[in-house]
Amino acid sequence: TQAFKEKVWEICRMSKKIAQDDPRKVIHSLKVGLAISLVSLFYYYQPLYENFGLSAMWAVMTVVVVFEYTVGATLGKGLNRTLATLMAGTLGVGAHYLASLAGEKVEPILIGLFVFLQAAIVSFIRFIPKVKARYDYGFLIFILTFSLISVSGFRDDEILEMAHKRLSTIFIGGSACVVISIFVCPVWAGEELHYSIALNLEKLSDFLEAFTCEYFTTLEDGNSTNIKSCLERYKSVLNSKSSEESLANFARWEPGHGKFRFRHPWDQYLKIGTLTRQCAYRMESLKGYLNSDNQGSSEIRSMMEEASLEMTMESTKALKELGLSIKTMTRPCCADIHIANSKSASKRLKSLLQSSLREETDLLSVIPVGTVASLLIDIADCTEKLADCV
Amino acid sequence: TQAFKEKVWEICRMSKKIAQDDPRKVIHSLKVGLAISLVSLFYYYQPLYENFGLSAMWAVMTVVVVFEYTVGATLGKGLNRTLATLMAGTLGVGAHYLASLAGEKVEPILIGLFVFLQAAIVSFIRFIPKVKARYDYGFLIFILTFSLISVSGFRDDEILEMAHKRLSTIFIGGSACVVISIFVCPVWAGEELHYSIALNLEKLSDFLEAFTCEYFTTLEDGNSTNIKSCLERYKSVLNSKSSEESLANFARWEPGHGKFRFRHPWDQYLKIGTLTRQCAYRMESLKGYLNSDNQGSSEIRSMMEEASLEMTMESTKALKELGLSIKTMTRPCCADIHIANSKSASKRLKSLLQSSLREETDLLSVIPVGTVASLLIDIADCTEKLADCV
Repeated sequence: TQAFKEKVWEICRMSKKIAQDDPRKVIHSLKVGLAISLVSLFYYYQPLYENFGLSAMWAVMTVVVVFEYTVGATLGKGLNRTLATLMAGTLGVGAHYLASLAGEKVEPILIGLFVFLQAAIVSFIRFIPKVKARYDYGFLIFILTFSLISVSGFRDDEILEMAHKRLSTIFIGGSACVVISIFVCPVWAGEELHYSIALNLEKLSDFLEAFTCEYFTTLEDGNSTNIKSCLERYKSVLNSKSSEESLANFARWEPGHGKFRFRHPWDQYLKIGTLTRQCAYRMESLKGYLNSDNQGSSEIRSMMEEASLEMTMESTKALKELGLSIKTMTRPCCADIHIANSKSASKRLKSLLQSSLREETDLLSVIPVGTVASLLIDIADCTEKLADCV
Repeated sequence: TQAFKEKVWEICRMSKKIAQDDPRKVIHSLKVGLAISLVSLFYYYQPLYENFGLSAMWAVMTVVVVFEYTVGATLGKGLNRTLATLMAGTLGVGAHYLASLAGEKVEPILIGLFVFLQAAIVSFIRFIPKVKARYDYGFLIFILTFSLISVSGFRDDEILEMAHKRLSTIFIGGSACVVISIFVCPVWAGEELHYSIALNLEKLSDFLEAFTCEYFTTLEDGNSTNIKSCLERYKSVLNSKSSEESLANFARWEPGHGKFRFRHPWDQYLKIGTLTRQCAYRMESLKGYLNSDNQGSSEIRSMMEEASLEMTMESTKALKELGLSIKTMTRPCCADIHIANSKSASKRLKSLLQSSLREETDLLSVIPVGTVASLLIDIADCTEKLADCV
């Protein structure tokens, strides 16, 4: 029981942390509760119940399944579900009619064949990557509805009514979800994407800043834990691809909101994300040099310190500027200047390396600086693309 | 219509490609069709239908929703769904009983409150990362069943029977899925993970091989397209994290099969995956030097060629060996030797750099070789961890 108590305690602490980190998650939970309670009113309210009967449970079901954290995901799922039900319902009724023409003996065989065929074909279609990204849920519901309608049509003769009821209850449940997710403290996938991209750029600039601090100053100062955390934060950028892609997919479903139009160029964000990750890969390589033994002689380092400090400072500034300009959606004004500065600094560094190292022997200390230079070129690339976007 | 025709044509071509790349996907589609047809037999077969009535549709539904590509995912979803239905059903009946004690007026209010509370709490629990990874679907079904049972309980007095029917039909549907996915051409998530890890190591070694070819030979030979493709293949490794993690999660649900025991150390695979990605990040940085202008003088390159060629060849061999040893699940026999060889070669390279470059000026050509050295250290690390695993 001791272990069990600790487990419960740990879960409580974790929940508290999640709630503090992002209060919107608590609000989302309350929203789900609200939506379900609202829809279950259908059961309590007599006239409505008489109209829909047991089918009203489809509305509850739709709410549970469709309600997602972001508006885009909810809208996407709701639209997918409604449209797929409509299409599959129509086809299912059609299949049932066709089969019933063939006579009583052949009917179940024909229907079984139809169900088998559509399930196999649609399952295969779901493997196509483009379809999977946007319409996966819709095709799942298509199989479900078609099977239910054509199979139960064999028993019920009121098949049209069943299809109609199912469609309208799903529509009610879906629209309840969409309305609540849009109008009660909405969480827009597009906004999330927007800020996560800007935040990632900031993380990179933090890393650059902390790296130069750590690499060029050997003295142990008080805020080293702060620097350590800055050195770790970029790691989340490395694996950001899948979450960014799903956010962009959700964002495409969303209507215009706030600063974003309906057809906001979400693909641009993905491009920036890719470039950001390429920078982060370079940083991952850079970081290996921080703790390794071959940091090189301190003379060489101090010799190169000035130029490389300027170079990294300038690119840090450029990154910060870019992050900010994304956040506020303004054209970056001084980023180009910073990049030009850092480019000239990197040139200076290169010539410094060529001229002064004739008499030096220890080359290993030079390597990280070289990598910083390569990193810089990438950042310059990134900015050019960025200028196209905002 | 021309555009439409082309679109259809493109979809057909893409489908054909998917089917050729992985025939198991076609088989999976047929399996889904088979499972749904089997379960819909309940409707046709008179005695069974009388027993379950309309509830039999839950079986069809379960099959559509639960059947996934890999055995692990199907098992996980099936177990989640059954257990969650069982728990939520019990609690739902309990809640209904509690509410009915309070009298007819208060009952709907109490039930509404219960539904709201559990929906909000469970939605919040789903945000906990560990829960999300393994039990997300179960908690979704928990909300669904609890709401349905307690809400419809307000109308139906045969609530226990409804709960029982729902549970047994879901059990039937779920076990049909599990049986078919295990016994008809199974696709094991564990096996997929196993081979994808081995394949990733192979990709890295291919890259190293191609890189040395490309970097040290300036002559244009016929198989350059082949080399180009080898240079691109490692890119898929960079973003392999999320797919590896979900495969490992599915694999934990799977019973022992083939070479894998029930509690196979899937976490080890994730560790190897992480190290593989770290190597790939280094390669991404390396690749920047291939096409850049500052490749350095050819004299220096040819001077360093012998040592760095040996170093990379040895680490390529070590990587190949490791990939093979994972694939066949044998302890790598000669990998240690290759790594020792490459380490000594890298030492030789370092001293070569220190001694001979006193009179040389162009340092920029040295940098990529330094990065290769850092890469090598990582690979050595990777091997040590690997030796623990297999």
